[in-house]
Amino acid sequence: MMGDDVENGNLGPYQDRPRTFPNMRSKPYTPLIFRILMGMNVRVLVILLLLGFGYVFYVGASTSPIIVFVFSVCIISFLLSIYLAKWVLSKDEGPPEMAQISEAIRDGAEGFFRTQYGTISKMALLLALVILSIYLFRNTTPQQESSGLGRATSAYITVAAFLLGALCSGVTGYVGMWVSVRANVRVSSAARRSAREALQIAVRAGGFSALVVVGMAVIGIAILYATFYVWLGVDSPGSMKVTDLPLLLVGYGFGASFVALFAQLGGGIYTKAADVGADLVGKVEQGIPEDDPRNPAVIADLVGDNVGDCAARGADLFESIAAEIISAMILGGTMAQRCKIKDPSGFILFPLVVHSFDLVVSSIGILSIRSTRDSSVKAPIEDPMAILQKGYSVTIVLSVLTFSGSTWWLLYTEQAPSAWLNFALCGLVGIITAYVFVWITKYYTDYKHEPVRTLALSSSTGHGTNIIAGVSLGLESTALPVLVISISIISAFWLGHTSGLVDETGNPTGGLFGTAVATMGMLSTAAYILTMDMFGPIADNAGGIVEMSQQPESVREITDILDAVGNTTKATTKGFAIGSAALASFLLFSAYMDEVASFAHESFKQVDIAIPEVFIGGLLGSMLIFLFSAWACSAVGRTAQEVVKEVRRQFIERPGIMDYKEKPEYGRCVAIVASASLREMIKPGALAIVSPIVVGASIALC
Amino acid sequence: MMGDDVENGNLGPYQDRPRTFPNMRSKPYTPLIFRILMGMNVRVLVILLLLGFGYVFYVGASTSPIIVFVFSVCIISFLLSIYLAKWVLSKDEGPPEMAQISEAIRDGAEGFFRTQYGTISKMALLLALVILSIYLFRNTTPQQESSGLGRATSAYITVAAFLLGALCSGVTGYVGMWVSVRANVRVSSAARRSAREALQIAVRAGGFSALVVVGMAVIGIAILYATFYVWLGVDSPGSMKVTDLPLLLVGYGFGASFVALFAQLGGGIYTKAADVGADLVGKVEQGIPEDDPRNPAVIADLVGDNVGDCAARGADLFESIAAEIISAMILGGTMAQRCKIKDPSGFILFPLVVHSFDLVVSSIGILSIRSTRDSSVKAPIEDPMAILQKGYSVTIVLSVLTFSGSTWWLLYTEQAPSAWLNFALCGLVGIITAYVFVWITKYYTDYKHEPVRTLALSSSTGHGTNIIAGVSLGLESTALPVLVISISIISAFWLGHTSGLVDETGNPTGGLFGTAVATMGMLSTAAYILTMDMFGPIADNAGGIVEMSQQPESVREITDILDAVGNTTKATTKGFAIGSAALASFLLFSAYMDEVASFAHESFKQVDIAIPEVFIGGLLGSMLIFLFSAWACSAVGRTAQEVVKEVRRQFIERPGIMDYKEKPEYGRCVAIVASASLREMIKPGALAIVSPIVVGASIALC
Repeated sequence: MMGDDVENGNLGPYQDRPRTFPNMRSKPYTPLIFRILMGMNVRVLVILLLLGFGYVFYVGASTSPIIVFVFSVCIISFLLSIYLAKWVLSKDEGPPEMAQISEAIRDGAEGFFRTQYGTISKMALLLALVILSIYLFRNTTPQQESSGLGRATSAYITVAAFLLGALCSGVTGYVGMWVSVRANVRVSSAARRSAREALQIAVRAGGFSALVVVGMAVIGIAILYATFYVWLGVDSPGSMKVTDLPLLLVGYGFGASFVALFAQLGGGIYTKAADVGADLVGKVEQGIPEDDPRNPAVIADLVGDNVGDCAARGADLFESIAAEIISAMILGGTMAQRCKIKDPSGFILFPLVVHSFDLVVSSIGILSIRSTRDSSVKAPIEDPMAILQKGYSVTIVLSVLTFSGSTWWLLYTEQAPSAWLNFALCGLVGIITAYVFVWITKYYTDYKHEPVRTLALSSSTGHGTNIIAGVSLGLESTALPVLVISISIISAFWLGHTSGLVDETGNPTGGLFGTAVATMGMLSTAAYILTMDMFGPIADNAGGIVEMSQQPESVREITDILDAVGNTTKATTKGFAIGSAALASFLLFSAYMDEVASFAHESFKQVDIAIPEVFIGGLLGSMLIFLFSAWACSAVGRTAQEVVKEVRRQFIERPGIMDYKEKPEYGRCVAIVASASLREMIKPGALAIVSPIVVGASIALC
Repeated sequence: MMGDDVENGNLGPYQDRPRTFPNMRSKPYTPLIFRILMGMNVRVLVILLLLGFGYVFYVGASTSPIIVFVFSVCIISFLLSIYLAKWVLSKDEGPPEMAQISEAIRDGAEGFFRTQYGTISKMALLLALVILSIYLFRNTTPQQESSGLGRATSAYITVAAFLLGALCSGVTGYVGMWVSVRANVRVSSAARRSAREALQIAVRAGGFSALVVVGMAVIGIAILYATFYVWLGVDSPGSMKVTDLPLLLVGYGFGASFVALFAQLGGGIYTKAADVGADLVGKVEQGIPEDDPRNPAVIADLVGDNVGDCAARGADLFESIAAEIISAMILGGTMAQRCKIKDPSGFILFPLVVHSFDLVVSSIGILSIRSTRDSSVKAPIEDPMAILQKGYSVTIVLSVLTFSGSTWWLLYTEQAPSAWLNFALCGLVGIITAYVFVWITKYYTDYKHEPVRTLALSSSTGHGTNIIAGVSLGLESTALPVLVISISIISAFWLGHTSGLVDETGNPTGGLFGTAVATMGMLSTAAYILTMDMFGPIADNAGGIVEMSQQPESVREITDILDAVGNTTKATTKGFAIGSAALASFLLFSAYMDEVASFAHESFKQVDIAIPEVFIGGLLGSMLIFLFSAWACSAVGRTAQEVVKEVRRQFIERPGIMDYKEKPEYGRCVAIVASASLREMIKPGALAIVSPIVVGASIALC
């Protein structure tokens, strides 16, 4: 009977049974913000939106023409992203059995997302109260006193920025997942026609969420900046100086970090546990292929790609970009003040302009990947990696041009007429770093290069040698990135240092800002990189849907190649995100020192690890990385064990599953992974947030 | 026919065939020093020895009564260790098939040791030439100039100390292995009679090499110190001050470190590769037990325990103890000078006295483990861990007493009458740290505690979850030790700081010396810890011999328990060695800064990681750990792959092996592992030595 179904048409193995996922929506929790938005009338929404745009342009115009430029670019990108989404959604969903699988994935992903972000938003509200009370009771800085900014105002500003950062991060996560759970089935369907079309759909779906992530980060900061500028009457006599304004934005970055931390923990535990659990029983014990419909954990695995790689990675890059923009703005402000630059707004707003241009050049890169006119199936399948790389090359060449233009536009100053050129070179250092990082990650993760081949070969002598070789490869792959980052930091610092910018006493001061500009340069193609990243889980899901709906070999071949390339591009983004964070670490560290100095009312210029307390701080900080990883790993392990037990139970209790005679209960695995990853994300997350406070407090008490 | 052999007596499976290990002695290289010593007449040797003792006591008496005390204790310990060795060797070697296996292990271990140390000694000679030329061309320090110590003298002194350190390290490694390859079979044989006797033999064999290791480290430094004291006329007008003398000893520490690095790399690669290779085919693919005589890699595995765990761990602890004694002597000297203490020799020689007492208290601990009078086999097997712990408790209680006595004897000074009490408390901090470290390692590695049980449970759901849980456990186990070390450093620094010792300007200066004293406290039971460590591989080997010679179940039961306990005690020593190194790192760092400052002729008081070059130094340093581990891991993996292929080949080409009808070629596996580990140890070793120089030079050139 089973064989008949498949032979008679495109019907999947279980299409004659009702789709039931009993436990998946056991907790139909919808966050308040979604309920309010969904409950509103469409016309009211449109009017509110128009009013919002009007306000935004009004405050922008009152602040600086640069802000108007940033707003305009962001809004155009949003319009473009809507076009991309519409284009993707206009593609067909394929035969019913594909759509059915895709709906199951969508239900699982959206259900988990809502519960997860429900938990996160409750924690964020609690933390907002803590921040509020800390700010209400702590000392004010000299800057605050001179600008007449009261303790209460400063507290409310910080909390509002924190909540806005958290909200924007949540929205970007949702948007990223929203499109990926809809694009996956369209890619599967397109793979039946042409490899190129499948690739294009995946890229454009990824591009949609990449533009939203970067656009939200930029516009959120720009709105906060412009609002505070107008509201506090910045630069008018007796009130705050514009160079101190960026310090008020740190709450936004912390909000984004907070959400990103838990989004990545929850999503990461989900995706890895489901993947390991599904493969250990399915592939290893039962010998059935990856994503086989008989595996009860296969839907959970596919859901994991969306919540782990799409939503979580979006939140991760949103946080990186937001935090690095804000700290570069802080450093630009401090430096402009120290050098007594007449119009410091160029130095402060520089990062926002760079990221606006990122939106422009990445859009061009995304759109440069087009269908070939000759879409005959007989043409040999092109290498998708080469196509993506070509788009990246377009983006990177354009970004060199726009970056140099931005430095000339905003960083030209009469005090040091050639400083902009040095900073343009700093940007080039950053762009080259990004390119080298992408290359290194590709080298270590692409099946065409030696490391992956050596690893594959080492599997021929058993699990043991495979694991040793894999661990060794992972450890080794850290070396080149660290070397590259070290060279970048030193050369950017040197370029900034020799830029000709000097403080009152004639000392060169541009070094640190040079590293900030290099970080901006590294992130100046972030939207394209994020597109390649989002491409990964979409292609992975498409492969799963093709396998589950048992499409012919030729279709699987296409999605397998896309999947393999997707794994490399996913890894690339991780490398890129960690690399830019490492490059920015020096910068964030300095911004932190400035902030501490201004609250402590005393100079804080050096971190001397020859002092026992500082040395111990370093020891404990390094230890935290290991402890955090340990807890995250053991969370994955425990959850995977639960999945293994459930999958084994189903295979034993329902022997018909292996002969396609019985349908596995996919929903139970989804429910197990979802509740376990929500439970397990708390401990490592709390460790990361609480331990710096505990260590600081106990050393202070000693 | 096979069955008859076993039934007719104690004859092992292959006793009727000639023992052949064709490739094992393919390179019968004997280092020069061995050839000279072996070629000498016994009487000449005795006369030389007596002359040596006479000389040693003469220079000791001319230097300080403390040195005479140290010499006497060391020589008594050597005599005791000879007694222990004789006691062990007086035990029977069991039936011929046991002795035969033991001989094969001995041949493999000694062959590898000679080749390995031949390579190491050639490299050491080369490095000695490099050191000589560097010292001949570099600047002198103000101390050297004021004492009239010329550039050439200083160069020869350093090179001589380096070579002596390397030689002593080699001797300790050889001695450790020499006894373990002889004790293993005696333990197996004793296990046929009584568990307690088997334990006692293993402990005393371990005790023998522990006393030699610690004794060699102490007497080597004491001889160098006394020789330089007499030769350079220290403390007489116009020549060197005694407080500068310890700086001349650093070469000894470097020699020990150099040998330890390669001993551990070569031995470590050997033991892990043989172990993995043997188990992957034997246990996993063929399903035969561990150490089964049918496994062609089983002899290589047993050899690995000796060269990896005995010889290498001995070299490791020799290096730790030597380096920490020397840096504590340097710090004691600098502090005594700064505080203008009248007789500084107590502060300088304190570490030597502490380690002399270590020899005394550890000997008592070792001898406290005795045979029970009632050695009837019917008594239930006692827990060997409990017995070893009881011995450790005896040692630790005695060491608290002797340590306090030493501080009162040597660190009492009229300037600060209660300082000795503070330093006694520092020592207590160190002793408690050692105890807590042993406890933590036991908790994480003993099968009686939760972590190992959780790990065992996680294996029930497959390899994947087992590996995730294991990695997570390994990462997690770093947390408590770092916390403990942090608390120790802070409290020891504080105790030293408040000891009442002040410099000329009235600033407290004893903080750093406090951490040095705590390190001495931690190492004050080192000989006992090392005994427990050496116990591990001997018990492991004994188990292997019992299994290979197919003894009855009851004998295996005894060796299995000893083996399990041995694995825990081996881990304990690793934890202990790393912990004492971490505690000493702060100390070594400061000693290094003092040394650099004195050559650079400028003050070097802080290490400010807010400076880009220093920050990058930190990044690169952290990266080196990962790269070194990567290369060491991949060396193990590649070597294990070669073993797997060889073992598989033998099983395929000689199907009779599985039915005991054909004897496997053990020698080929031994030869493969030996040559691979010698080849593979060079790259990571060179990385560790060369990279600090390269990084320093390139940052200096920038």
